[in-house]
Amino acid sequence: MTTRIAHAGLAARRMSAEQAAGLILPGMTVGMSGFTGAGYPKAVPLALATRIAAAHERGDKFALRILTGASTAPELDGALARVGGIDFRLPYQSDPELRARINAGQIEYMDIHLGQVAQYAWCGFLGKIDVALIEVAGILPDGRLLPSTSVGNNKTWLDLADKVILEVNRRQPEGLDGMHDIYYGTALPPHRKPIPLLQPGDRIGEPYLRCDLDKVIAVVESDAPDRLGRFAPPDEASRRIAGHLVEFFHHEIAAGRLGDQLLPLQSGVGNIANAVLGGLREGGFRGLTAFTEVIQDGMLELIGDGTIEMASATSLSLSPEGVEEFVRRIDFYRQHIVLRPQEMSNHAELVRRLGCIAMNGMVEADLYGNVNSTHVAGSRIINGIGGSGDFARNGFLSCFMSPSTAKDGAISALVPMVSHVDHTEHDVGLVVTEQGLADLRGLSPKQRARAVIAQCAHPDYRPMLQDYFDRACRDSYGKHTPHLLNEALSWHQRYLDSGSMR
Amino acid sequence: MTTRIAHAGLAARRMSAEQAAGLILPGMTVGMSGFTGAGYPKAVPLALATRIAAAHERGDKFALRILTGASTAPELDGALARVGGIDFRLPYQSDPELRARINAGQIEYMDIHLGQVAQYAWCGFLGKIDVALIEVAGILPDGRLLPSTSVGNNKTWLDLADKVILEVNRRQPEGLDGMHDIYYGTALPPHRKPIPLLQPGDRIGEPYLRCDLDKVIAVVESDAPDRLGRFAPPDEASRRIAGHLVEFFHHEIAAGRLGDQLLPLQSGVGNIANAVLGGLREGGFRGLTAFTEVIQDGMLELIGDGTIEMASATSLSLSPEGVEEFVRRIDFYRQHIVLRPQEMSNHAELVRRLGCIAMNGMVEADLYGNVNSTHVAGSRIINGIGGSGDFARNGFLSCFMSPSTAKDGAISALVPMVSHVDHTEHDVGLVVTEQGLADLRGLSPKQRARAVIAQCAHPDYRPMLQDYFDRACRDSYGKHTPHLLNEALSWHQRYLDSGSMR
Ligand SMILES: CC(C)(COP(=O)(O)OP(=O)(O)OC[C@H]1O[C@@H](n2cnc3c(N)ncnc32)[C@H](O)[C@@H]1OP(=O)(O)O)[C@@H](O)C(=O)NCCC(=O)NCCS
Ligand SMILES: CC(C)(COP(=O)(O)OP(=O)(O)OC[C@H]1O[C@@H](n2cnc3c(N)ncnc32)[C@H](O)[C@@H]1OP(=O)(O)O)[C@@H](O)C(=O)NCCC(=O)NCCS
Repeated sequence: MTTRIAHAGLAARRMSAEQAAGLILPGMTVGMSGFTGAGYPKAVPLALATRIAAAHERGDKFALRILTGASTAPELDGALARVGGIDFRLPYQSDPELRARINAGQIEYMDIHLGQVAQYAWCGFLGKIDVALIEVAGILPDGRLLPSTSVGNNKTWLDLADKVILEVNRRQPEGLDGMHDIYYGTALPPHRKPIPLLQPGDRIGEPYLRCDLDKVIAVVESDAPDRLGRFAPPDEASRRIAGHLVEFFHHEIAAGRLGDQLLPLQSGVGNIANAVLGGLREGGFRGLTAFTEVIQDGMLELIGDGTIEMASATSLSLSPEGVEEFVRRIDFYRQHIVLRPQEMSNHAELVRRLGCIAMNGMVEADLYGNVNSTHVAGSRIINGIGGSGDFARNGFLSCFMSPSTAKDGAISALVPMVSHVDHTEHDVGLVVTEQGLADLRGLSPKQRARAVIAQCAHPDYRPMLQDYFDRACRDSYGKHTPHLLNEALSWHQRYLDSGSMR
Repeated sequence: MTTRIAHAGLAARRMSAEQAAGLILPGMTVGMSGFTGAGYPKAVPLALATRIAAAHERGDKFALRILTGASTAPELDGALARVGGIDFRLPYQSDPELRARINAGQIEYMDIHLGQVAQYAWCGFLGKIDVALIEVAGILPDGRLLPSTSVGNNKTWLDLADKVILEVNRRQPEGLDGMHDIYYGTALPPHRKPIPLLQPGDRIGEPYLRCDLDKVIAVVESDAPDRLGRFAPPDEASRRIAGHLVEFFHHEIAAGRLGDQLLPLQSGVGNIANAVLGGLREGGFRGLTAFTEVIQDGMLELIGDGTIEMASATSLSLSPEGVEEFVRRIDFYRQHIVLRPQEMSNHAELVRRLGCIAMNGMVEADLYGNVNSTHVAGSRIINGIGGSGDFARNGFLSCFMSPSTAKDGAISALVPMVSHVDHTEHDVGLVVTEQGLADLRGLSPKQRARAVIAQCAHPDYRPMLQDYFDRACRDSYGKHTPHLLNEALSWHQRYLDSGSMR
């Protein structure tokens, strides 16, 4: 019995990753841990990939339905996709191999709001869950589980699955103990009660995951770090986007619409989000809070220096250097971080009550403030909507950010009509590019179009957008949201045909 | 002092509608009562229209920003639009004159989720509100206000406006007294608390509206009914849509995903919604609940005969016959109806907690489950999104319904790509036409497309949709959401060019 597996009965169920993988059968639905590259199982998926490849070698069918918290890593999504072991996947992914197969039409992928996965599973909308495969940082003497670097949908998979396989990863810091808050007060309607959370740092649950021990069919030991890269230092465009947003916040404070400590921040994944966080520190903010999904290096630094006083999330997604810093001062960070199930970190009730400021990246926005977060040319998925909709719809303010061009200027991120809509005109408050910030609150569609063209468009594309808008205002069937339908998507088609929207 | 104006100080501020209209000045923002044709002010807007017409006659500029609960009636939106008295309007409208001017580009209209208007106003996103013009059914001796047939945003306008004009309509039933529940526990973030509502019928507030009496600059007496027509009896298509939905509910009950009493129903406006309600009665349901915006004749009948045990709404939108029945048994109905501010009837927290079943009409849906509720050919607004997004995003299940064709078959309601998105692929659970019901829960985009084509499309358009889908699966840039961008909107363009999508 290792110290990480302190329950005798479960210690007796230890086996190799290969043996555990043998318990997962073709056609099963497997609910796995993992959220933005943190806390995913590291041993069994690789063994499973080998087992699936062997089955295919023999001419047998073998593919699984894989549900997770969010994105995982090459050892999970990459390995399983490569051997053709996934036939259905939800809710969020960012692995290049998996993405390529989804876009080749080989894997069915369902893109779902991260805050709604748990309730959909509970309501039976996602079918039966055969196995939960969950990484934990340890097992207590009474069988409760010390969660790992992400919580994601682990509570839900453990509760709903017929069988459970645990990966106990001794590489995850034991000092995570006490950082989690697993709320066990959820219910299905009509039995739901208010969720008693009033501030981002409130603890309303328990530090451990419960598990019906009779369901545990395997315990596998692992010893591997979360695999995450370091962010590039913010580039010029990101710094300018951050600058516009920080200036906007100061303006709102001056107008009395925000207090000095703003409101709980939600910050998406990626370089721009990281730059915005840096901008907040330089902007002189102190004592902020975050109610978000992921704590990345940039946010850890802000917690470390007091810019952010309290951060709630479902995942700690840190680079190797970030992990080092985190472990070094873990007793400090435990006072300032709460890790929750994603059902709570992204819950409509809590996002609305707390009044989150949602800051997310986008692929493109259109004249009228519709936002595409997921598709290139309306058809090729990038990562998925993630939690952006949970926050954009129900929060206090929703900001979408992108450089004004992509692919060295061949693509304008501001287009006549987006090729896919993830956030409708009704849900977008600010659009920000390095060119400037368009404040769309309280504006009609045509007023929004003027703001987007003037503030956000790149000078190379501004006259083209203005020309489209002018002609649409003249010739459109209706003048509420002026459009020329046979041109609306022509910029995207031109890019596909010629490699440039120009 | 009439019995309807029992406060001496306010009785002294009585004046004619013309005098009161004289207190509203050019450029002002006026927050008015009114929700789906119920409880709108009936005297002052007409006087205001006369005053505005006279000003224009003299060559003076005179236009207003008009905010309401939802749609009103010809005496308000129609009259003011006709004289060019509105330059900005939100959040929902359905008046033909107003719509024509919005679509001609003469009036700026902002289409906003009905459940978010109040918080946006409070947060300062909609600018200063100069005057609240509110219909009430009476004024109590202590100055509190007996609300009329709708509550809408009245609490918010009364609280926020600089000045208040009250219309006391003696035609509205005094028996409304005790039917309203005005919750005064809202706050701006970071001071928000859980809303203590657990069941649709819970009363968590007060039966009357509070009003700072110092702000009241005029009290006008009126005597006119809400102007609402009667529904046509359900046509064949509506009855078949209702039949598919009722069959689905029975199927879900059998599968254990819904109980015999379903979950609180939200039912949109219009004939199809009405037919569905009728279908529920015929389907043998009893003791249901509703947590919805509007109680129309169809729902009143269901309350009257016990099919619906308890209904929460923000508006009573009844035909003259409906009003007669309502008044005749008002003491009965008061036990089964609660009228709330629309901030509560449509609140994300409550819709999520209660697990509403959202049933709304749509203009069109596409292969991948995106829904357009508002625009014809992407540019011409019909009514607005209303509360459909509040319920579709946060409820238990979201159903969108439409006949499979419009305009005598010249238009298919199922298209390759919708020309405007109000509800994204992430928010649409069921699509129902008279042809059948597509259950999109848990499906990837391509799986959804197959269901929509097979279940919902009209036979005349089914081969065309299948052909588009097949070619898109072959030739699309990405195969996740297969699209041919230069064809995606061609059906709409063909309709504009030739009068038919065929
Ligand atoms: C939208 C999103 C992909 C942007 O990511 P990012 O890291 O800020 O931006 P990048 O510039 O690296 O863009 C990612 C890719 O999209 C491409 N891209 C960006 N804008 C594009 C556009 N308008 N058209 C086509 N491609 C575009 C980039 O070129 C890049 O492609 P590459 O990997 O081939 O170089 C990212 O924010 C996202 O996944 N959002 C949705 C989920 C979300 O909001 N999560 C937050 C809560 S979970
Ligand atoms: C979508 C909506 C307009 C449908 O209304 P309805 O009364 O069920 O349907 P109708 O068949 O009368 O359609 C209304 C109009 O749209 C037209 N229409 C319907 N489908 C159409 C389509 N696919 N393309 C073009 N026009 C279409 C109809 O022809 C009709 O036009 P007309 O008045 O010129 O005859 C209505 O449900 C709505 O306003 N929804 C959005 C708001 C909402 O959901 N509210 C509920 C909560 S507040």
